[in-house]
Amino acid sequence: MEKPVYIIGVGMTRVGRLYEKSGRELAAEAALAAIRDSGGVHPRALVVGNMASSIMMEQDSLGALVADYSGLRGIPAYKVEAACGSGGAAFYSGVSLALSGLVDTVLVVGVEKLTEYLTSKATKALAQAMDAEYELFYGASFTGLNAMVARLYMETYGYSREDMAHWPLRMHEYASYNPYAQLPKKTSLERILKSPVVADPLHLFDCSPLSDGAAAVLITSNEEVLEESLNATGRDVVVEVAGIAMATDSVDLGSRRDLLTLESTVKAAREAYAMAGVAPDAIDYAEVHDAFHITGYLALEDLGFSEKGKAVEEWKSGRYAKGDKPEVNFSGGLKARGHPVGATGVYQIVEATMQLRGDFPGYRASDPEIAVTHNIGGVGTFTTVTVLKRRR
Amino acid sequence: MEKPVYIIGVGMTRVGRLYEKSGRELAAEAALAAIRDSGGVHPRALVVGNMASSIMMEQDSLGALVADYSGLRGIPAYKVEAACGSGGAAFYSGVSLALSGLVDTVLVVGVEKLTEYLTSKATKALAQAMDAEYELFYGASFTGLNAMVARLYMETYGYSREDMAHWPLRMHEYASYNPYAQLPKKTSLERILKSPVVADPLHLFDCSPLSDGAAAVLITSNEEVLEESLNATGRDVVVEVAGIAMATDSVDLGSRRDLLTLESTVKAAREAYAMAGVAPDAIDYAEVHDAFHITGYLALEDLGFSEKGKAVEEWKSGRYAKGDKPEVNFSGGLKARGHPVGATGVYQIVEATMQLRGDFPGYRASDPEIAVTHNIGGVGTFTTVTVLKRRR
Repeated sequence: MEKPVYIIGVGMTRVGRLYEKSGRELAAEAALAAIRDSGGVHPRALVVGNMASSIMMEQDSLGALVADYSGLRGIPAYKVEAACGSGGAAFYSGVSLALSGLVDTVLVVGVEKLTEYLTSKATKALAQAMDAEYELFYGASFTGLNAMVARLYMETYGYSREDMAHWPLRMHEYASYNPYAQLPKKTSLERILKSPVVADPLHLFDCSPLSDGAAAVLITSNEEVLEESLNATGRDVVVEVAGIAMATDSVDLGSRRDLLTLESTVKAAREAYAMAGVAPDAIDYAEVHDAFHITGYLALEDLGFSEKGKAVEEWKSGRYAKGDKPEVNFSGGLKARGHPVGATGVYQIVEATMQLRGDFPGYRASDPEIAVTHNIGGVGTFTTVTVLKRRR
Repeated sequence: MEKPVYIIGVGMTRVGRLYEKSGRELAAEAALAAIRDSGGVHPRALVVGNMASSIMMEQDSLGALVADYSGLRGIPAYKVEAACGSGGAAFYSGVSLALSGLVDTVLVVGVEKLTEYLTSKATKALAQAMDAEYELFYGASFTGLNAMVARLYMETYGYSREDMAHWPLRMHEYASYNPYAQLPKKTSLERILKSPVVADPLHLFDCSPLSDGAAAVLITSNEEVLEESLNATGRDVVVEVAGIAMATDSVDLGSRRDLLTLESTVKAAREAYAMAGVAPDAIDYAEVHDAFHITGYLALEDLGFSEKGKAVEEWKSGRYAKGDKPEVNFSGGLKARGHPVGATGVYQIVEATMQLRGDFPGYRASDPEIAVTHNIGGVGTFTTVTVLKRRR
């Protein structure tokens, strides 16, 4: 990084089927929470992460709309879309703005409104993460593509459905402590295994839910603004964006070299770690993208934590839990915190920041100093990896 | 600007009802043209400007898709949306990336696919530039809102339909020289006035058409990359982004203070001019956003060229034509070059760059040194203003 970028405020709404709130209300709630958390710092630009507002809300122009409803009418604002990785991509764009010299203090808001009485509308919206001409046109579903990857992984490395089920089992346990989680309920292996099939081998409890929610992060590259925020809040911990990188892959799976490697994750992780000057074994805490259990396991491998094919057995034997390095997804992950798609990458930054500051209101990490967030769009079409460091 | 950003390559497709080409093909055609025009420089990141791919193409993830189809699989890439101002916003985001130090050489591609046999689908997509809860829900149409602004302007300043019609008259004339224009045909005042009504007082020839098209601009902040490009192309002219600013307003018109002032344009212009160190009277050439004739006239006033209420009479008496300062919209404007919405702001940068370089293949400006582009989304919800300067 040419100069440091600091996270000075974070905010989020509860994740869930929030029928009583519109997308603009959720976005403003998170935005105002982040501004309050910073001690009242005024953002100079806004980037909104969102995937599906065209289909779900009949609304484009979210940048200006969210600015206006957050009391920020007039500032530069636009929406960034990268499918389920829209939140991470919006944060990447926001960090670049804060580094550019065009503005110094940037609010990044992720928001998604996916639930209403007609579930098929959300299915239609999410299907646009696939290649419209080579996948969607032929009747593929997004869960179906992930199911094929899961089946290939299980057959290649000899894992059973029960082996795989330890991911959702632990996510539900962690989420039970998270007041912002959509599914804050412990569950059992039996319940996971007996849940209805969605796309074999993926059953309902192997998949993240449809979610509404919004999260916001306020960043600055201006040391005076940082001081102003620290003075106003009395906070003595500073969280810094030490590294960030984004990478892409083909949209259609048929063009990939290897379905069991998220190449965009490998590339983004390598670049973000290099920028931050850290190796994978230096990372204390990680929030990784687990839209399906298979996605979570691939993330652990492609972020450099587990060898290829080993993530499931290591996870099952207790790795990545409290006291390990890294500790992973104490929020409950996409699986149980929920997955408001364009907001998910921003939730991860909020949660990792609060773990570093020591004020996450759920299951607490063991005093981490270096955290990583990992947000993907499609089946690895986009990845953004961020490295956060705590300074006192 | 903290450091200079140079435009080293530009490319575009013809604008029109391009039924035979998909959005991804158009985008790749423009992207490859820009890379060729730069002498073969490799972009390190991609920003795609697009509004309506969800509705028109059933396709999100355009960032990765366009990267892949342009031979750039793997690089950071995302889509930026700001309604009809998506192209300008994407360029703003691309310039910030090039300034950020995260990457130095960035390709910005604007693409829109609006035409197919079902015109109402495009009308539905464009309607999302309005406020879904306070305008669209009550049955407003996007042309209807612009018609109300036009009527108020005409009644406030005492202009007739015939006075206003001089805008499309001149745009059609300019477009007749532009091989990339959708409507390269001269027309007459009589034909404009007798064209069918769309939303009174706006008739068909007062409005920009539905268009497909893609445009691309390759920029760099790296002096070595600039040299590499100049050596490869043998070009001796350098076009620099001397100033850029973006501003927003409320989405719904009911919340505006003054319907006859595009406040986002006033603010963005002031900031971009200050950054570039130029006053309005120093500007030699401008490409302004004229989705409707009224939009073009308001742009001339709010960019600081004409006094409020005077743009129509000055235009009618011949101001802004060849030899004047600034010369305006020699491309034919949105009106007659066409308005592929998310691409429009990028087309303007391509055209202004070619006018500065002296190689625009249509109606030529009088050897300009300083050019401005002006791209809006909604009825002034978003504005991006860019100041370009030629150096030899």
